Amino acid sequence: MITVEEVWSLLADHVRPLDSQRVSSGGAVGRVLAEDVRAGFDFPPFDRAMMDGYAVRSSDFERGPATLRPLGLSRAGAATELPVEPGTCVQINTGAPLPAGADAVVMVEKSAAAGDHVHLDDQPHPGQHVTERGAMRTRDDLVLRAGTRLTPGGLAAIVSAGVAEISVFRTPRVAVLVTGDELAHVEGPRAPDQIIDSNGTVLVGLIAEAGAAPIVLPAVGDDREALRARITEGLDCDLLCVTGGMSKGTHDFVPEILSTLGVQWHVTSLKMKPGKPTHVGRAPNGAWVLGLPGNPVSCAVCFLLIGRWLARGLQGLPTAPPGHFLGTVAADLPGNGPRPLYQPARWSPGPRGENWLTPSDWQGSGDPFGFATANALLIREAGAPPLPRGDSIRFIPFDESA
Amino acid sequence: MITVEEVWSLLADHVRPLDSQRVSSGGAVGRVLAEDVRAGFDFPPFDRAMMDGYAVRSSDFERGPATLRPLGLSRAGAATELPVEPGTCVQINTGAPLPAGADAVVMVEKSAAAGDHVHLDDQPHPGQHVTERGAMRTRDDLVLRAGTRLTPGGLAAIVSAGVAEISVFRTPRVAVLVTGDELAHVEGPRAPDQIIDSNGTVLVGLIAEAGAAPIVLPAVGDDREALRARITEGLDCDLLCVTGGMSKGTHDFVPEILSTLGVQWHVTSLKMKPGKPTHVGRAPNGAWVLGLPGNPVSCAVCFLLIGRWLARGLQGLPTAPPGHFLGTVAADLPGNGPRPLYQPARWSPGPRGENWLTPSDWQGSGDPFGFATANALLIREAGAPPLPRGDSIRFIPFDESA
Repeated sequence: MITVEEVWSLLADHVRPLDSQRVSSGGAVGRVLAEDVRAGFDFPPFDRAMMDGYAVRSSDFERGPATLRPLGLSRAGAATELPVEPGTCVQINTGAPLPAGADAVVMVEKSAAAGDHVHLDDQPHPGQHVTERGAMRTRDDLVLRAGTRLTPGGLAAIVSAGVAEISVFRTPRVAVLVTGDELAHVEGPRAPDQIIDSNGTVLVGLIAEAGAAPIVLPAVGDDREALRARITEGLDCDLLCVTGGMSKGTHDFVPEILSTLGVQWHVTSLKMKPGKPTHVGRAPNGAWVLGLPGNPVSCAVCFLLIGRWLARGLQGLPTAPPGHFLGTVAADLPGNGPRPLYQPARWSPGPRGENWLTPSDWQGSGDPFGFATANALLIREAGAPPLPRGDSIRFIPFDESA
Repeated sequence: MITVEEVWSLLADHVRPLDSQRVSSGGAVGRVLAEDVRAGFDFPPFDRAMMDGYAVRSSDFERGPATLRPLGLSRAGAATELPVEPGTCVQINTGAPLPAGADAVVMVEKSAAAGDHVHLDDQPHPGQHVTERGAMRTRDDLVLRAGTRLTPGGLAAIVSAGVAEISVFRTPRVAVLVTGDELAHVEGPRAPDQIIDSNGTVLVGLIAEAGAAPIVLPAVGDDREALRARITEGLDCDLLCVTGGMSKGTHDFVPEILSTLGVQWHVTSLKMKPGKPTHVGRAPNGAWVLGLPGNPVSCAVCFLLIGRWLARGLQGLPTAPPGHFLGTVAADLPGNGPRPLYQPARWSPGPRGENWLTPSDWQGSGDPFGFATANALLIREAGAPPLPRGDSIRFIPFDESA
């Protein structure tokens, strides 16, 4: 039995990103950079006015405010070609390139018409209200590092730097295989001794949230031949998540079939609750296998603690959370048993802005409703004493940004 | 000039969810329930074994451990029809329905073969290792409330309760219109006085993250007729986000055109930094309009603070964050000016599990790189004094779960 932390370091040692591919940067939200991205040109690409007003030569103001002859208007995308000669100025809009000759901007609020001239009540220093070309990045400066997951803001930076094509790691294909005679589909008939599968539903959602592509295989009962056929299909993907049949019951065939297909196990039992029967292994073709318990909460929690980090590692991201957050628990918690406990909870801002953790109403790992509104996992150590409401507790949020 | 908080309460007063539609529950991740969801049947749907072992009559154990005659095996999906008579038992797997006559389960670990009988070294009370039918929900019990955004776990709960069809609010169609002669597309040619648009990129990503459907209109220059035509198209959507041309420059036509199209303004100037020129209004057909500054950081920050909550309100979600979180700032911050400041930052777990906020390297609102790795906004009050590293700071994370 190994702990979740031990699984994370095992993943760090063994999970490598998939191959990379070049893609158009515009649609790459959620992808992970396989190479550093460097600026395609200086940014800004020209000396840029930061205010609406007049582009001037600061030397015209050596003796104080000046009255100058305006030559026209310079806008970004419609910049004037006229150079600003001594005694002249050019009206300019925010964002426009500074015309040749000019070295400062006087705000429109400090201007007044004076016949065919304009009076500018200011004494600008060189560079006033101007952002110099290349002030933020010069060509080939780093924009984003390899290994960065592209948020909308990250993508915007890449596009701004003129980079139309980037190298990203391939999106992992993650097979979802739900097994067990006891399972009916919500759209189909249900025998009186069946329950409706929800593990397929939750895994598809969580796999997509982890940045991977879920591939749902048809569900299969507790039949050795059918299981073997579907599992073999699943091993064509980068990761196979198979639920149910992982324990030691009379019809729990899954680990045995995976072993006969050559899967080498890294993990066959986890020191945690829920989810003890979780398996992690690797097939001869390199595909990863995650065997998840059939109990709905166990399945979801173990995917979040292990499958999610495996899927992220295949994308070139770290294989463990960056650390735990500390929060305040909103309910009394009983003492914990001999295994570390990961309990679903709702994280929200508390009365004083603290991380406020409301444990989910959870009737054990077989309760499919205990995870419905959770967005975090509380962490209880093995043998932890009862924890009163208001005490500190460690937690991991689910969201992608953490 | 009104504050962001005032905009939120204005949205609460005026934004109403779109119409609802019935959808198949399986694919509804991210949608928002328009009606309460109630259980389609009792859950569990039968008295359920919680352990692998033997289904027994507790009355057979009145004088202590018992030796019973096993009648067969009961599995979920392959339940036995045999009733358990006095002196008999049925082997049972976790999750299987308890056979008629049985009222308890003895764990397999407490069993030993005794010829064609089995010796069970236990003294079970009625209900031992059994979850009663309906223990978690009975038919018509509430599963999730109207107004809940469906996470993978929420959807799993709905499916488990046998609900194949749900009523959700329609996904808002949000038009993205980027304007300005200064803008080139990253895939196209760029004149020397142009920069590359990134507002379209960031808005598409943030709109999708807010649960809405982005519709990208072709970009348009600072031309009154072309702007009017595109804006008219955009008003066919539920929300039009238009960037650029919102200030008082010589070619800032957008608010004027929107006004001539009948848009009534709720907001024409925001008391915040960045993003003062932000406009919020409503067209005669009911479409909402969000006019965003053209500066990249202003555009992103104002969408996150206002557009995101407008889009969420149209889906039946609250129109404001649930509150602010408190964290620790990882760098010295200068004193703040006369308007509240919302500064991009990276939120991560700090050395002691605290919320740790690293301000983005941000050279003002025109810096398209200042938002690249941000996942939170720091909040500084108007006139706030300098804040040393290690002090408390309020923040709003971007992620959907908060």
